[in-house]
Amino acid sequence: MSLIVMKFGGSSVGSTERMQRVAKRIIKTKEAGNRVVVVVSAMGDTTDDLIDQSKQLNPNPPAREMDMLLTTGEQISVALLSMTIHQLGSQAVSYTGWQAGIVTEAVHAKARISDIKPTRIFNALDEGNVVIVAGFQGMTEEGEITTLGRGGSDTTAVALAAAINADVCEIFTDVDGVYSTDPRVVKCARKLNSISYDEMLELAHLGAAVLHPRAVEYAKHNNVKLVVRSSFNENEGTTVKEEAVMEQGVVVSGIAFDKNVARISILGVEDVPGVLAKVFGALANNGIDVDIIVQSGVLEGKADFSFTLSSSDADRAIEVIEGIRNEVPFRETTSETNLVKVSIVGAGMVSNPGVAATMFDAISKLGVSIKMVSTSEIKCSCVIAAEPLNDVVRALHTAYGLDTAEQVFVGGPSERR
Amino acid sequence: MSLIVMKFGGSSVGSTERMQRVAKRIIKTKEAGNRVVVVVSAMGDTTDDLIDQSKQLNPNPPAREMDMLLTTGEQISVALLSMTIHQLGSQAVSYTGWQAGIVTEAVHAKARISDIKPTRIFNALDEGNVVIVAGFQGMTEEGEITTLGRGGSDTTAVALAAAINADVCEIFTDVDGVYSTDPRVVKCARKLNSISYDEMLELAHLGAAVLHPRAVEYAKHNNVKLVVRSSFNENEGTTVKEEAVMEQGVVVSGIAFDKNVARISILGVEDVPGVLAKVFGALANNGIDVDIIVQSGVLEGKADFSFTLSSSDADRAIEVIEGIRNEVPFRETTSETNLVKVSIVGAGMVSNPGVAATMFDAISKLGVSIKMVSTSEIKCSCVIAAEPLNDVVRALHTAYGLDTAEQVFVGGPSERR
Repeated sequence: MSLIVMKFGGSSVGSTERMQRVAKRIIKTKEAGNRVVVVVSAMGDTTDDLIDQSKQLNPNPPAREMDMLLTTGEQISVALLSMTIHQLGSQAVSYTGWQAGIVTEAVHAKARISDIKPTRIFNALDEGNVVIVAGFQGMTEEGEITTLGRGGSDTTAVALAAAINADVCEIFTDVDGVYSTDPRVVKCARKLNSISYDEMLELAHLGAAVLHPRAVEYAKHNNVKLVVRSSFNENEGTTVKEEAVMEQGVVVSGIAFDKNVARISILGVEDVPGVLAKVFGALANNGIDVDIIVQSGVLEGKADFSFTLSSSDADRAIEVIEGIRNEVPFRETTSETNLVKVSIVGAGMVSNPGVAATMFDAISKLGVSIKMVSTSEIKCSCVIAAEPLNDVVRALHTAYGLDTAEQVFVGGPSERR
Repeated sequence: MSLIVMKFGGSSVGSTERMQRVAKRIIKTKEAGNRVVVVVSAMGDTTDDLIDQSKQLNPNPPAREMDMLLTTGEQISVALLSMTIHQLGSQAVSYTGWQAGIVTEAVHAKARISDIKPTRIFNALDEGNVVIVAGFQGMTEEGEITTLGRGGSDTTAVALAAAINADVCEIFTDVDGVYSTDPRVVKCARKLNSISYDEMLELAHLGAAVLHPRAVEYAKHNNVKLVVRSSFNENEGTTVKEEAVMEQGVVVSGIAFDKNVARISILGVEDVPGVLAKVFGALANNGIDVDIIVQSGVLEGKADFSFTLSSSDADRAIEVIEGIRNEVPFRETTSETNLVKVSIVGAGMVSNPGVAATMFDAISKLGVSIKMVSTSEIKCSCVIAAEPLNDVVRALHTAYGLDTAEQVFVGGPSERR
């Protein structure tokens, strides 16, 4: 007998038929002799509808009241799913986040889970119930209702799995698992049987549609075994765990990419201590995330440096930099948008020299110039122009031996919460 | 400075405009120097929509899960109302039933409030907030979410008013107050300025559209001053309290009526001790409410008796009676449907002899026969055929001097919860 956490997203329970299919799958898992805890998101468009309603009354509502509003979405889901399980002849009990003992920090809209008190869950399991917990929500020590922000339901599932020491946390989605790259770009993308937490985090941009990075971090930290699998079939899915089984000859597990990248360069900066801290401190204070940073050598006491960030933040970032010109004198800024970042990811890279060289070679053979490079132990990223992205991804996928004979069909990514 | 509880029903907050109007009224009350606690029901059709959704998945869902589902309706209302108040520049905080400290018995769908712990409400008031509490809901000592059943939001308002020792509990509705009779029947019906709890309870059938009887009972028991008033204007409304000011010369305060009454007679019952207890015990065990009971004299050891009940229960009641024929032998049953009960209600009746005689006289002058009579200290009820009901009500309204010069316009009764 295993203790299993099963997590279903909003699109999995978005209609009567889908709700019934999910209920049957849960009952089947229970009847196979397992103890089952289910985490579920708000159904289909519920959250968007609630947000629309609120905007009509207050375009900028207090976060506390928004949490009061939005948590009803998951409460509706859990109640209806429990009723459906009862209708199919099995036994279930639904809990809100606070009833399930999920305690969060005193922050609204993006609280972090600080504790889980699973007594009620264990009692309900002992009474023979499937336990259904509302994802995305919790309660502060003071009894305020909070939400966990994006990826919240995945995080709820992983945190619950850690708290009750579950054997596995299954994340159900509309694809078969985690792929070597986006199957919409590379038709012969390979479904990965297993992958490490770190690789999964690096593949986050591919994985965002199937697993939220925050949940992966939580799983890594608490050593929770994750399985990403389809809610439409019984295929095995992808296992995410600490020590992924290295597949024979596979050094690179996947190709990730990030669209809408911009580069900003600050030229002729006076090279005094603390310059970088001032620039990136100012950007961080304005909520602007910076990705790759490259500094060139210093010439005549002046330095050039460049960094990448999301295209949508580029204009604001330049304003911020101009705003600190008094503190950080420089000659000029230049910027370039319509870039992408493509990355090869693999836990085997660290022990295989020459992996990055294969990447540079494959890209240059396409006549594409590499604008920036960044490497870590398990990945190598290149910033290139957006236009040849698909060709580059396909070339890399082939170069690292990831192509399969089969072609995969995958629909659009589901909404995540 | 007064401490005021204001209760708004679902139709009062059923649209963006209505929500804004309610918010303005609340802010105005607060800015007049009062401390304000608001109780609100689910918006418009929310509850019905949730019930419809659940029926598709389980036609007979567990009451516990239904409570989980339906309580989201009020949680949505309180969050949106709070946001609206913030948008209008004032300060508010919303609470679910459990956050407001409303503790109920461990019964689903129709729990009774067992305790209210108002610490959070007082703290929030002290911080300058309007406090908005979800009606119709509470939590058991074990942390299960419960609902209070029909009239639940009125009951929440009255119970909160009692717990925080409010100066008044204002129930907002779409009519100006409690009327001497249904203005749809008698155009010159009189709005009552004040009325006692007992009279209000007897007028329940008129009052059901403006105030739930259970809330009146709770108010009486806890001596909470109620005001029933319009959410559309600033008129004074009707005050319901222990000692209503008797209006000059008014002995009868109002004319109530109850449609869809049936009479069942059991003829030739053996007159042995405990017969009545057996019959009405069996009916009660089957959830059938009986109203007026009349027993004729005993002839040759056999008795006849008759009782009234809701028309919709008549067939089932006869089945129940036939089912206990072995224990309670009788000759036959007869029944009559399409009857009504009309009642005069007034705290002054007890000290004014001849009040009932005026009623019988007025009815007989219309050529209508009285089938059954029942009296108490503050009312006299007659069961008559349904067809002449409106004429009888108008005649009684005139006979007791209740007619006013003005004509009242009143829309249909609002949905109550």
